[in-house]
Amino acid sequence: MAGSANMVLGLLAMPNGSHSASWRLPGAQDGGAIDIGYQRRLVQLAERGKLDFFFLADSPSLRVDNMDVWSRAPAYQNILEPLTLLSALAGATTHIGLGATASTSFFEPYNLARQFASLDHITGGRAAWNVVTTANDYAARNFGLPRLPPHEQRYARAREFVDVVFRLWDTWEDDAFVYDHAAGLSYLPEKFHRTHHEGAVFKVDGGLNIARPPQGRPVIIQAGASETGKALAAETAEVVFGPSGDMATAIAFYRDLKGRLPAFGREPDALKILSGISVVLGESEAHAREKLQSWHDLVHPDVARIRIGQDLGNSLMDLPLDEPVPEDRIIEGAGQHRAYAQEIVAMVREGLTLREICRRYNRSRAFLCGTPSQVADLMEEWIGAGACDGFMLSPLSLPACLEEFVAQVIPELQRRGLFRTEYEGRTLREHLGLKRPENRAVPALADA
Amino acid sequence: MAGSANMVLGLLAMPNGSHSASWRLPGAQDGGAIDIGYQRRLVQLAERGKLDFFFLADSPSLRVDNMDVWSRAPAYQNILEPLTLLSALAGATTHIGLGATASTSFFEPYNLARQFASLDHITGGRAAWNVVTTANDYAARNFGLPRLPPHEQRYARAREFVDVVFRLWDTWEDDAFVYDHAAGLSYLPEKFHRTHHEGAVFKVDGGLNIARPPQGRPVIIQAGASETGKALAAETAEVVFGPSGDMATAIAFYRDLKGRLPAFGREPDALKILSGISVVLGESEAHAREKLQSWHDLVHPDVARIRIGQDLGNSLMDLPLDEPVPEDRIIEGAGQHRAYAQEIVAMVREGLTLREICRRYNRSRAFLCGTPSQVADLMEEWIGAGACDGFMLSPLSLPACLEEFVAQVIPELQRRGLFRTEYEGRTLREHLGLKRPENRAVPALADA
Repeated sequence: MAGSANMVLGLLAMPNGSHSASWRLPGAQDGGAIDIGYQRRLVQLAERGKLDFFFLADSPSLRVDNMDVWSRAPAYQNILEPLTLLSALAGATTHIGLGATASTSFFEPYNLARQFASLDHITGGRAAWNVVTTANDYAARNFGLPRLPPHEQRYARAREFVDVVFRLWDTWEDDAFVYDHAAGLSYLPEKFHRTHHEGAVFKVDGGLNIARPPQGRPVIIQAGASETGKALAAETAEVVFGPSGDMATAIAFYRDLKGRLPAFGREPDALKILSGISVVLGESEAHAREKLQSWHDLVHPDVARIRIGQDLGNSLMDLPLDEPVPEDRIIEGAGQHRAYAQEIVAMVREGLTLREICRRYNRSRAFLCGTPSQVADLMEEWIGAGACDGFMLSPLSLPACLEEFVAQVIPELQRRGLFRTEYEGRTLREHLGLKRPENRAVPALADA
Repeated sequence: MAGSANMVLGLLAMPNGSHSASWRLPGAQDGGAIDIGYQRRLVQLAERGKLDFFFLADSPSLRVDNMDVWSRAPAYQNILEPLTLLSALAGATTHIGLGATASTSFFEPYNLARQFASLDHITGGRAAWNVVTTANDYAARNFGLPRLPPHEQRYARAREFVDVVFRLWDTWEDDAFVYDHAAGLSYLPEKFHRTHHEGAVFKVDGGLNIARPPQGRPVIIQAGASETGKALAAETAEVVFGPSGDMATAIAFYRDLKGRLPAFGREPDALKILSGISVVLGESEAHAREKLQSWHDLVHPDVARIRIGQDLGNSLMDLPLDEPVPEDRIIEGAGQHRAYAQEIVAMVREGLTLREICRRYNRSRAFLCGTPSQVADLMEEWIGAGACDGFMLSPLSLPACLEEFVAQVIPELQRRGLFRTEYEGRTLREHLGLKRPENRAVPALADA
């Protein structure tokens, strides 16, 4: 893909950015997450940068433990529900794709199919759905369960959920609604296809009350890191959030996942793998690193140590900040993400104090500190090496980091011919170079 | 209420209007229901008329029988999901309330609470939720059930559903989010209230991840015709769609329902009862009636007789159009709505042909044919007699009937001092003269 102008760029729009101190950084807007004026300015900024899509992560939950600690690092306590928000942003934009996470564990397929189909119509074909099973017990408890169902069970439901949603979107053929006034005929009955589904989890007998989405179906996103996740992604996903940080890991993931597509009759190019990056720009790399350290220093120590404890898989809340962390706090294999835990273990073994670890811990994130040209170099290198098809920008501070990126890095990528200078298509599928899917309910196709 | 400028006016925005032939009438836009540009023009027209709110009826279903008949009278086959649509209309309007039906039988309280809270934030306090249990088996079959649960069971779920949603909206006190940069404190933990609910249907342990809605809670609408429905309405509703057509029935309903409020510690004025009207304007009453008859004549006979058969409670599809309907088709008590069935039975007993019945049947709807002055007279009379607090306008043809109503009837109501000339408040509660509810989770209030 090196040298192609088709690098994909998405924006992960966290309320004030992805840094734990983002809400306190210059330019951050108080309560911006629920301020529709702020959100409009943000998505319009992303559209000025010609980004492929604007994306909202989500969980239908609130962490209700340690409320005093999280009051120091607000993130998802006060946010607009993503589908409602994206729909409100539709009229403020004309080209940029609008994507959101919605959980297969806590929605009904019929409601979700309707809402995403509606969003696709409202935006003229710019909707994307990030299929997740949701991985936290706080959400489960909002929906009558004491804890999450096991991983395999969630994925079995997800697989069936996606299938049902795909069928519902295919209820009507593209040219079903004719509105023939002279004949008094609004649709052609033979272009309606009833959805009959009886599965292990869902039973649906009926059809969707909306015309087929302009994109055939909204673009399907997934984050598939697990084996089950990768299997589902290879079958259904069109955009995948892949690994960040280490290029060799990214290349291995890229080859693995793309290699699975032909088994499902799919071209490798039918799925785009994006690597997450958090760019910090400066006049020099050192300057950018200083800037980042000054942000880290604004994180409350309680927030830092509760996060580090979670990633290590053992609480550190009772320890004094200015003494080394005892090695007996290390429990082999306790953290959910191996790479995160390893970073912490190394610092504990070095004998650093808890405060020092809090200051230095970077959670393996691809914090990319440098000049615009250095950042463009690295992005070009990753694409050229076959580590990804593009990037999910996860700005640490919003709107500041995005303003800088759009003003300084995008033009550099454009000069190098790596990124579009204007939108060429109108739908998100067109931006991404993805085909519009056939309607699977059409008899001729179904028989073939 | 006579002489008050507080008459409430809502708009029932059916795709092309509520007439069976609406899609074929002059000015009707093909597929307008899924065209966001058309919907924006419609809501802006309603806002120019200073209406209290714009309202979308809904069912999460598609009638999948008789697809050939319904192709002659499209209504809800191809519509945008209401919450998604209202959110997209928020930015196109500044004052008018935005309400929608959402089913307690086929949503989860957590998802619904989030989406309506989000809509209330996005609109600056203009959201309304019409609480329904959904009364059709087509919906049930989209959600894994062979048919609807019994009426009592649906209402038991609805009652608990509403209670859970109210609690979730009260998760945060109004002044919980402080964003105190100097202190590094984004919210006051003591102003968070965990939702603990263990009921017969729902278990919720957590809280909502969004600040309390600007209106405290969105305005609650109901249609409560049944005894169970009226009981729920008296306890929780703030707007009720009451009976149309016969004034004596409307007055009895009005007195009955308002009389039930004090038992729940509510003032009679805390609930507004609206009567549905479909206005057809003309230079004279006769002219308006001719116009209406010309619309009826555009309804395909199959559509008319399938509808009449449903209202009668017995199929008429096999009968010849130009012969009288045999009296043995009348089954006592078979139709769901007694008044509808009675209108048909009378015409059958009169010996009318099926085609004549199709032409004349008016489904007891308050088709109000007349000059602007006659229409205003009748509206004034109903308000003055204590039959309702206002009206749900159900234009037979959109946008045409609404354009005429805004141009001809609204100014007449304004001249008479019956309706506002400008919006005075900003929220829907302010338009309706409804109090902002207290947060029931606040300890001082909860203890009192």
